[in-house]
Amino acid sequence: MPAHSDTMTAASILGEVTDFVRQHVITLEQEFLAHGYPGIAESLQALRGRAQQLGLWAPFLPIEHGGMGLALHHFAPISAALGYSPLGHYALNCQAPDAGNMELLCAHGSEQQKERFLLPLIRGETRSCFAMTEPEFAGSNPLHMATIATRDGDDYIINGHKWFTTGADQSAFTIVMAITGVDANPYERASLIIVPAGTPGYEHVRLIPVMGDEGAGPFSHSEVRFNDCRVPRTNRIEAEGAGFRLAQQRLGPGRIHHCMRWIGVCERAFDLMCRRAATRELSPGKTLASRQTIQNWIAESRAEIDAARLLTMDTSKKLDAQGARAARCQISQIKFHVAAVMQRVLDHAIQIHGAAGLCDDSLLSHWFRHERAARIYDGPDEVHKSVVARELLAHYST
Amino acid sequence: MPAHSDTMTAASILGEVTDFVRQHVITLEQEFLAHGYPGIAESLQALRGRAQQLGLWAPFLPIEHGGMGLALHHFAPISAALGYSPLGHYALNCQAPDAGNMELLCAHGSEQQKERFLLPLIRGETRSCFAMTEPEFAGSNPLHMATIATRDGDDYIINGHKWFTTGADQSAFTIVMAITGVDANPYERASLIIVPAGTPGYEHVRLIPVMGDEGAGPFSHSEVRFNDCRVPRTNRIEAEGAGFRLAQQRLGPGRIHHCMRWIGVCERAFDLMCRRAATRELSPGKTLASRQTIQNWIAESRAEIDAARLLTMDTSKKLDAQGARAARCQISQIKFHVAAVMQRVLDHAIQIHGAAGLCDDSLLSHWFRHERAARIYDGPDEVHKSVVARELLAHYST
Amino acid sequence: MPAHSDTMTAASILGEVTDFVRQHVITLEQEFLAHGYPGIAESLQALRGRAQQLGLWAPFLPIEHGGMGLALHHFAPISAALGYSPLGHYALNCQAPDAGNMELLCAHGSEQQKERFLLPLIRGETRSCFAMTEPEFAGSNPLHMATIATRDGDDYIINGHKWFTTGADQSAFTIVMAITGVDANPYERASLIIVPAGTPGYEHVRLIPVMGDEGAGPFSHSEVRFNDCRVPRTNRIEAEGAGFRLAQQRLGPGRIHHCMRWIGVCERAFDLMCRRAATRELSPGKTLASRQTIQNWIAESRAEIDAARLLTMDTSKKLDAQGARAARCQISQIKFHVAAVMQRVLDHAIQIHGAAGLCDDSLLSHWFRHERAARIYDGPDEVHKSVVARELLAHYST
Amino acid sequence: MPAHSDTMTAASILGEVTDFVRQHVITLEQEFLAHGYPGIAESLQALRGRAQQLGLWAPFLPIEHGGMGLALHHFAPISAALGYSPLGHYALNCQAPDAGNMELLCAHGSEQQKERFLLPLIRGETRSCFAMTEPEFAGSNPLHMATIATRDGDDYIINGHKWFTTGADQSAFTIVMAITGVDANPYERASLIIVPAGTPGYEHVRLIPVMGDEGAGPFSHSEVRFNDCRVPRTNRIEAEGAGFRLAQQRLGPGRIHHCMRWIGVCERAFDLMCRRAATRELSPGKTLASRQTIQNWIAESRAEIDAARLLTMDTSKKLDAQGARAARCQISQIKFHVAAVMQRVLDHAIQIHGAAGLCDDSLLSHWFRHERAARIYDGPDEVHKSVVARELLAHYST
Repeated sequence: MPAHSDTMTAASILGEVTDFVRQHVITLEQEFLAHGYPGIAESLQALRGRAQQLGLWAPFLPIEHGGMGLALHHFAPISAALGYSPLGHYALNCQAPDAGNMELLCAHGSEQQKERFLLPLIRGETRSCFAMTEPEFAGSNPLHMATIATRDGDDYIINGHKWFTTGADQSAFTIVMAITGVDANPYERASLIIVPAGTPGYEHVRLIPVMGDEGAGPFSHSEVRFNDCRVPRTNRIEAEGAGFRLAQQRLGPGRIHHCMRWIGVCERAFDLMCRRAATRELSPGKTLASRQTIQNWIAESRAEIDAARLLTMDTSKKLDAQGARAARCQISQIKFHVAAVMQRVLDHAIQIHGAAGLCDDSLLSHWFRHERAARIYDGPDEVHKSVVARELLAHYST
Repeated sequence: MPAHSDTMTAASILGEVTDFVRQHVITLEQEFLAHGYPGIAESLQALRGRAQQLGLWAPFLPIEHGGMGLALHHFAPISAALGYSPLGHYALNCQAPDAGNMELLCAHGSEQQKERFLLPLIRGETRSCFAMTEPEFAGSNPLHMATIATRDGDDYIINGHKWFTTGADQSAFTIVMAITGVDANPYERASLIIVPAGTPGYEHVRLIPVMGDEGAGPFSHSEVRFNDCRVPRTNRIEAEGAGFRLAQQRLGPGRIHHCMRWIGVCERAFDLMCRRAATRELSPGKTLASRQTIQNWIAESRAEIDAARLLTMDTSKKLDAQGARAARCQISQIKFHVAAVMQRVLDHAIQIHGAAGLCDDSLLSHWFRHERAARIYDGPDEVHKSVVARELLAHYST
Repeated sequence: MPAHSDTMTAASILGEVTDFVRQHVITLEQEFLAHGYPGIAESLQALRGRAQQLGLWAPFLPIEHGGMGLALHHFAPISAALGYSPLGHYALNCQAPDAGNMELLCAHGSEQQKERFLLPLIRGETRSCFAMTEPEFAGSNPLHMATIATRDGDDYIINGHKWFTTGADQSAFTIVMAITGVDANPYERASLIIVPAGTPGYEHVRLIPVMGDEGAGPFSHSEVRFNDCRVPRTNRIEAEGAGFRLAQQRLGPGRIHHCMRWIGVCERAFDLMCRRAATRELSPGKTLASRQTIQNWIAESRAEIDAARLLTMDTSKKLDAQGARAARCQISQIKFHVAAVMQRVLDHAIQIHGAAGLCDDSLLSHWFRHERAARIYDGPDEVHKSVVARELLAHYST
Repeated sequence: MPAHSDTMTAASILGEVTDFVRQHVITLEQEFLAHGYPGIAESLQALRGRAQQLGLWAPFLPIEHGGMGLALHHFAPISAALGYSPLGHYALNCQAPDAGNMELLCAHGSEQQKERFLLPLIRGETRSCFAMTEPEFAGSNPLHMATIATRDGDDYIINGHKWFTTGADQSAFTIVMAITGVDANPYERASLIIVPAGTPGYEHVRLIPVMGDEGAGPFSHSEVRFNDCRVPRTNRIEAEGAGFRLAQQRLGPGRIHHCMRWIGVCERAFDLMCRRAATRELSPGKTLASRQTIQNWIAESRAEIDAARLLTMDTSKKLDAQGARAARCQISQIKFHVAAVMQRVLDHAIQIHGAAGLCDDSLLSHWFRHERAARIYDGPDEVHKSVVARELLAHYST
């Protein structure tokens, strides 16, 4: 895997990635829509090989770890280019939750953890997952959970129930958030612990069918259980009690990653709606494009997407310059704002396509279903809005 | 199948139907969500038998045809009660497109057509479908189609391509809309022709996967082809050239039927959102119901559903009293208005459920996906709005 | 003032009122828009005389008190017919706040209060006002106020500051809400007390210019002060501490009255937008009505107004049949729902009129400005939504 | 009037302007809201003198013409800072329509026109107006007008009827758009002609009361007539038939100027809503800021304003770099997008203020009323959306 030369500018990388997506990635989409991940697993692996050969790999990772060393605001437009296809991020090994796990282990993993878990992940040989949300507790309150890791000699014994663990299917390991200190202050109760696949007591309960898709491999969400699941203490990432803090650090950039990707989704939906409008005839010689309602949707979508893209770029620059803490309020802003724009754009695109937009051979059906979750995962809209308001209002109280 | 006694009032029927749905129909839902129609086909048939025994059957059909003889505005609240479950209408044999086909054949079928096609349908022994939309043409323009039925002696030879033919899978017959007079005026070009299952040249191309659901039996949409498909002229319903007129007659009440059913969907979604809000804890002792945003959605949904229900009832009364032609503008109004209300209510209900609302064991995921089509089928919103505006504006031009 | 004969049906009254508004009331509108109340005070008084002669007077009041004895659900469509003009309600002496004050005094006034204050009001010889809201406290919390009435012998000495006292200008008396028992439970702290005009210590501070209109007479809102203002105890309405209860009783029907009137506003705006669309040319021979966006607004407005009207009617029937308490949740629903519909309809109507809709010789400018308050007065949207949600959610908690 | 030194950076100018607005301009607002332009005309003139002394004057004009020579994207944030007050732009002599008229005369005026009309305008000694819209024709179609200028020897004789001529009251001259070539192609029919105040036949019909404000001086809109109004041909700006082209050139940047100003309006409204939320008590110790609905509005407003600002900045950069023609589509985008954001933000701000936001001593009442026009003037939303869609769709047709 050749490290990317310094002289290759972000702009030329963006051009290369865009070409790669348009020429190679999107050719797998119809098969993916028809048969899911199993139908393209092999082709996708070949595609990844090709990307690596081109030096297009893990753009967000430091060069010394095998990535392209791009700052977030340089990665942002690339992520949008990848998001143009549902397969783009996986093709370059920067899909959730692996990207976040790589960042986490790069920054906080022990040497042993890096050797065993991180390196194969970076090389694209394995996948991983992150088990945080529990069905019995509101995901919007990350302090509210029941999974517990009890110390037993040099081990932890983990018991708990998690769901919406993205990509758990066929993962090499799970990073689980579990309570290690019941009596600590709420923000220091939990730790992050690596549970390798195959560990006794780790139970993959089921693939959760989500919006009409059972999913498989990286494109899946699972319910898992930990039943007296024993792992060595050395599998804990960083200090005991650091779980909440590390998870927050991981989520900040993660939310920007989602927003960037959504911009790509919007651009594809926009292309699809324009092409449909320009070519679909209502009557001989008269296309959908002649209807003012369609024109309204196209104009409004274009303005909203452009504004959302600029807001996302601006946020990524702030995060690069001042850090995640300083950008926290802006990250929450784009999380709910861009998700709402995407939902509106997808809805318009479907309406313009009529029945064709409902069919599962359409990306619009795929995204309409899968991205309804965007307003829920990584913090529902409502939580982010309260976060933003409280931070802003602090400047106004006497 | 006992005819319903005259003295049984609409109100008491409503009570019975409501009980039947709550006690019997909804018990099949989880199995349906998990395994689709095949998983419950047998239980559903038993349920239909039970409904027939209770005299709850085809409520919209005249008593002499085996129905309950209910006027549309008496059927409306019953349809809402049935719509509370995705299985309700099928359980009482008043699901689309069979209900519309029964009405059509009752009113316009020949004696022979009634004997052979209608009666088994009424008895619930068969199912049927209606093939109108073509993938190559905008469904919003019903005059724009290519399927053609050419006279050949006493037969028609049909050639054409249709899709979104609801319930074609395992249907006993298809009513196809085909051009029989290319040179006639646009509104008299087409005829409706019955094509029995198994007729050579009738090809069931595929089940169309729609919003993550391939579907089966009555809960499916198919692509079909007619390849030199020969049927006797006596299979034509009513006069040659009557197709467009009959289809419009069929669609008017059909749109009210959809709206009534959507009210039921809204009520169920409302129940689900309230129950979730009242019981889901954000933190110990503090439920979602305490959040003002949730309160807003509940209050707005209640007001919108009530208003939509009253508007639908009012329209059904007008149609009963003055006929479909007089109610045409109001029917178009509720078609787009109620669909929009339903989409907003479902969206709020999902947001309140968080990840649980995205799971396919939730009715909310089912309806969010399947009822996105509501703004498209039987005329997209945009067409109905133009119809309404043009009719209203006619009163204002000088 | 002849009592209305029993045989005159609600429908025929509606016809008479509609004619009266269209033939007589609207002829004063342009003068009113140009010069305000002072410009039409005399003509308006003549118009009132004419209405009285026709037996169209105070429709909501019992016949024995000089009204028409109409149930609320019979008054509702009449109120909508009156609301078609901003002058309609005043012409028939059923404008706020006098209508509410008459109801209050009819039901709870002493004989002396009726004789001195109510009868001239019913005869249309005087006007009155109701002083509740205080600038220093959130109007959304009616328990939160500072105006106090201290007992001194047989008198009360009132001190306080009120604003948005509608119609205070030239009023014969003010009904003021004041604290009479600081230590009582919050709902029994206040009393309603009549303060005749001219009482020393009653200060009319100013007409409050609201949305570009200083106002005058019945069409005004004032800031008033009570500075050691002494009135006899016999001016108190009903028992001490009954203020909050009486105010709530007064507000329930009052909110329906507003909603009914807003339906009239919507109908007028709808007429105006349709007429404009049908006649305004974009280019020779091509009117605004040909534009799909305009068609969308007209169709959506029609559906929303019809639904809002039915919801308001349904609520008035419930209030008639079961009382204000039982209808409380529905009253809150229509309060925010109908106000929102009205604001959207007015906004569309203005946009269709372009610059002409912004001019003050247009009713649209008048209502756009004056009815922005509809989402605020008599309880802001947010309060009503919480009321509705809490009441509905009570059925769902375990 | 000292020319601004080159070294003074855009950032430091922005700081100076911001300080000037906060310290000096806003002190005149309450008087302006209470008594209009006449109440502050003198103070405002003094303020202008102070601005000139500080070198803060006509920022958009070239230095050689007495301005600050700022590129559009440097002027944009300054314009937002000025828009924070309704008096900001006038204080620095960059208010509409004078700013556009100065640009027009700088670029296209004859030496004589510059000497007589432009220089006093730049020095702030006079004001001017631009008469284009006619009441009888849709403003959205600039080719559709009736005002005509007939050649008579060395003069034009102008006849016509205009309205919404901003600032005509007390103007030194009017630039009128009139047809000079009935038979030319539609885009070359009109010319721009300067009509000095006092020219016989120029009739100032009336100040048009707009949204509750009759207006005066620069803050007014007039209806004017040209009755056989004779002016020399040398008063024509540029070639005969150039009127439409020049007007379009004038409008492009003009629309960006509006958008920039609206961002300032949004920022002020945002400040006001936050301050109100943080300080207004619902009950003792509990402020509006504690309510989730308020939090939602604040968060959504912040995200929308930031996105709109970035989109406006991006457009101004494009216009600076590539010219008005290349930025045409983006200018139309921000025209409707930013206007919609502003209307939502103002609506939320008013709702948070309750009755206080409706009072005319509140900037919110002022802007809610005056800026409803933003979606209409300089092209209604609907026209801009169609422009955008048609331009974008051109890339998609085969």
